[in-house]
Amino acid sequence: MTFAATVLTLYPEMFPGPLGVSLAGRALAEGVWSLDTVHIRDFAADKHRTVDDTPAGGGAGMVLRPDVLAHAVDHARARQPDAPVLAMSPRGSPLTQARVRALAAGPGVTILCGRFEGFDERIFEGRDVEPISIGDYVLSGGEVGALVLLDACIRLLPGVMGAASSGIEESFESGLLEYPHYTRPVDWEGRTIPEVLRSGDHAKIAAWRKHQAETETRLRRPDLWERYRSARVDRPLARGDD
Amino acid sequence: MTFAATVLTLYPEMFPGPLGVSLAGRALAEGVWSLDTVHIRDFAADKHRTVDDTPAGGGAGMVLRPDVLAHAVDHARARQPDAPVLAMSPRGSPLTQARVRALAAGPGVTILCGRFEGFDERIFEGRDVEPISIGDYVLSGGEVGALVLLDACIRLLPGVMGAASSGIEESFESGLLEYPHYTRPVDWEGRTIPEVLRSGDHAKIAAWRKHQAETETRLRRPDLWERYRSARVDRPLARGDD
Repeated sequence: MTFAATVLTLYPEMFPGPLGVSLAGRALAEGVWSLDTVHIRDFAADKHRTVDDTPAGGGAGMVLRPDVLAHAVDHARARQPDAPVLAMSPRGSPLTQARVRALAAGPGVTILCGRFEGFDERIFEGRDVEPISIGDYVLSGGEVGALVLLDACIRLLPGVMGAASSGIEESFESGLLEYPHYTRPVDWEGRTIPEVLRSGDHAKIAAWRKHQAETETRLRRPDLWERYRSARVDRPLARGDD
Repeated sequence: MTFAATVLTLYPEMFPGPLGVSLAGRALAEGVWSLDTVHIRDFAADKHRTVDDTPAGGGAGMVLRPDVLAHAVDHARARQPDAPVLAMSPRGSPLTQARVRALAAGPGVTILCGRFEGFDERIFEGRDVEPISIGDYVLSGGEVGALVLLDACIRLLPGVMGAASSGIEESFESGLLEYPHYTRPVDWEGRTIPEVLRSGDHAKIAAWRKHQAETETRLRRPDLWERYRSARVDRPLARGDD
């Protein structure tokens, strides 16, 4: 089944952009996923094709009108009623790998991209649109965020990464950062690959990697580490002991 | 002064991509920022132009060789010695708006993009490369992350957003999510713009917006809220009282 992506944007020419190349590009050509762009300006009601207006209460920038956004969302939803409608916004819930995996297992996704100061707040409840954030920084618009969200989903679609790499051992899949990687040369400028990785002892290698992942997560990302630890305490039977 | 971006990648054709359009595209054409791509494969030492090898200790995927990466980094650094060298990696420090602002105030940035399973760990210490993450999810490569990092920086460069929008009142700049926006129509499908925003009372509007920003941050992002509160307690003189 094709994963159907629909992007509502003022810059349809930004798509597929980098997703037309490499893994995602090949998968697009093969029909593993499809991409439709909808130009928000096509849903403006006046002859100037106005999509935005000044913020109520004053302030800099312009705000996308709820009526225009609603028409664009209605159009996309009529074509693909089962796909969730997300809006890229720094005020949204942070995107996680668990959410990416859930989206990739579904029929597709409709993504609303803003520009200027953002969306009129009423669109979220008025059209059941969920704001989602790719991180705690501000972008010039939602388009680059939409590319991130789609890239994260596409690589998980069946056949895209190939059988060799299931994505199960990666960063965040276990709630931890991934362990460090090494490859040839064994000695590079006096820096050598850790001995254990050259031992051929698979149990020892697995234990070392787990220890590395736990240690790095604890040191670099105490926030992830706390969540990982409480998940293990709360659900010992669900997670098992390793 | 031109903000100089250099991207080390196996897919130079992905750039400038969406950054060739709209605000960032105009700023690129005007010389506000510049973009160089460096093809990592040009630094392979063998006739097959090999850049990666199997992971030491076994496992799926391929790892980018430290010697090839080092040659590419050395090349970029020779051309632009003052720019920090960052590598897009889900194991890196999370990108923040404060970091974006610091980067945008500097001479530019060199960004190393991985593919496959990632980088040989030795490159980070061996060449003073800092791993940085745009969020807790996994992408097919660093390129889309590099676009995010660059877009966030470029919009802050002098002249890009215009004088009207300084970026000071946005999400994260105060440590809070931004307040909600509204624009015309005043009544949309029975949903009206909050009364206070139509009052013309600027002090009341500012107070309402601050309250909204605080409330939403507390409810939606307790992690940000905790950081905001402790910063205010720790540095009352530095931050003032509003």
